[in-house]
This record gives sequence, C-alpha cells and structure tokens, in this order.
Amino acid sequence: MSVTDELLANNARYAETFTGPLPLPPAKHVAVVACMDARINVYGVLGLAEGEAHVIRNAGGVVTDDEIRSLAISQRLLGTEEIILIHHTDCGMLTFTDDGFRKSIQDETGIKPPWAAEAFDDLEGDVRQSIARIKASPFVPRKDSVRGFVFDVATGKLAEVV
Amino acid sequence: MSVTDELLANNARYAETFTGPLPLPPAKHVAVVACMDARINVYGVLGLAEGEAHVIRNAGGVVTDDEIRSLAISQRLLGTEEIILIHHTDCGMLTFTDDGFRKSIQDETGIKPPWAAEAFDDLEGDVRQSIARIKASPFVPRKDSVRGFVFDVATGKLAEVV
Repeated sequence: MSVTDELLANNARYAETFTGPLPLPPAKHVAVVACMDARINVYGVLGLAEGEAHVIRNAGGVVTDDEIRSLAISQRLLGTEEIILIHHTDCGMLTFTDDGFRKSIQDETGIKPPWAAEAFDDLEGDVRQSIARIKASPFVPRKDSVRGFVFDVATGKLAEVV
Repeated sequence: MSVTDELLANNARYAETFTGPLPLPPAKHVAVVACMDARINVYGVLGLAEGEAHVIRNAGGVVTDDEIRSLAISQRLLGTEEIILIHHTDCGMLTFTDDGFRKSIQDETGIKPPWAAEAFDDLEGDVRQSIARIKASPFVPRKDSVRGFVFDVATGKLAEVV
C-alpha cells in the first residue's frame, strides 16, 4: 500500500465526523503565508478551525508572483484583511544556494530552471524582504496588518520579526 | 485586538504542549499541493501529524512555476516521492475569469498584473491539467505516484480524478 492510499484511508475516517459545508469566505478574514515544512501544522500553530483563514504555502514561505496572485484573490474576491507570514528555524532553504541548486538540475536534466530557487542565508532578513515584497505590490490592497514571524520548530512558538 | 493578536494567543497555548524538534525531511515522503481554501485543513483531511508531509498551497491548488520550484526542492533535497493534488467543490476559482479579474485590477490600480489569475470553469478538468503540468516538468524527478483529487466541502471526502 502506498502512503497515498494510507492517507486516503485516513480521509474516510475524517469524513465520518465531518460537517459541512461552511461558507467560502474565510470567517476570520485572515490569509496566512507559510513555508511548506512538514513540521508547521498551520491550523494547530494558530489555533485555526476549518473555514477561518486562507493558507498559502511554498518552499520557504517566500513571496513570489504566485503568492501575490493568491493574496490578491484572497483580499479582492474573498474579503481577507490581515496577512500573517511564517518562516521557521532549521529551514531547508538555509542549506543550499540558488546557483548551486539550479546548476545541479542543469547537470542532471540538461535544462536550467527559468525560476530562482529562492534560497536564503538570513532567516529574519528573508522574513523582512518577503513582507517588503507584499507591501510593494500594487495588487494587494489591504496592508494595515501584514506581520512576519519565525516559527521555532523546537518550541512551537512564533517570534515576531516585523 | 486584531485577529492576528488573537491567533498569537492561540499559539502560546499550542506551544505549552509542543514537543520538538522533529527531523527536517518529511517522514512519510509525501508532498501535498492543495487550494488555499479555508475549509481544507490538510492535516485533518489526510490524518497527517506534524513532520510527515510537505504542504504546498495557493489559490486554486493550481500548478505554476512556484509549485514546480517547491516540488523540485521537496523531491530533490528532502526526499519526497509521492504527490497528492487537491482541488475542491465550491471553489472561488470557478466564480470569475482571468480576463475579468485582471481588468478589475487594472481599472482600480492602473496596472494589469503580469500573471494569469489561473481561474477555471471545469473543476475536474483543472485537476487533470495541474497533474499534467507536474508530469510535463523536467524538474520534478519522481512521477510514479502523482494523483489528483477533489475534496467535497460538504462531506469532507476526497474523490480521485486522475
């Protein structure tokens, strides 16, 4: 049995006690942007229930065009007003460089990716620049509450950076 | 008190019983790509615990360059082998068009976004093409288990599409 099949069996059990549907717009009017890291259970970390917040995640929790697209849809079409950005300690993005990662792919496949890998060597510095990318975007209208944090994978605590 | 402050108070309670750190690579060697929709609690839906799977999310659960970047990092640097893609019923992406959304932003800000909004009018069709985008990418090496599902926000159940 694949892991996917095992998780589908978990889903059957989840559905047994599921009650829906909830409304489409997030009840708490919040969008969270976080790293894809397996140790960040966003609903647990922030005490969120189903239906309360949009959750946008990628490698690093960095802000690229796709996160701006998601935030624009979240705010303009679905009424969110606050943004919470979460990076974390012991992040994989601290362990390689853009040039090295792209070269390793080119060496193996013959093709250099057209995108930057978005690696970083300064965790808090990257929180600041991800927040700066959101604040600089003309497509995200509500910027009164855009706050950035580091999640500590040892303690489970969020520390505010900016 | 802002909603963000309320969620930070939740985090303090979460940290009281948190035990870490877990290892960086996902224990179940799985990456999940899902819509940012507030009603999809990925850890709950799949019965995942902290540390088990990468979770990548955006508006629609669509596959753009940023999801390929995240999947490439997930597989090449952190050892994941299976991919689970999740779209869902009652998705906001079914309620507008790319052209209309981009024009509304241009009308308001004077600037047309350089990215497609990735709206779709066929839910299962978009699951298929998101899976096709992953399978077509030269940068994602492991494609033996790349499966796409629709999550029913009324029942909590996943239905396999491809």
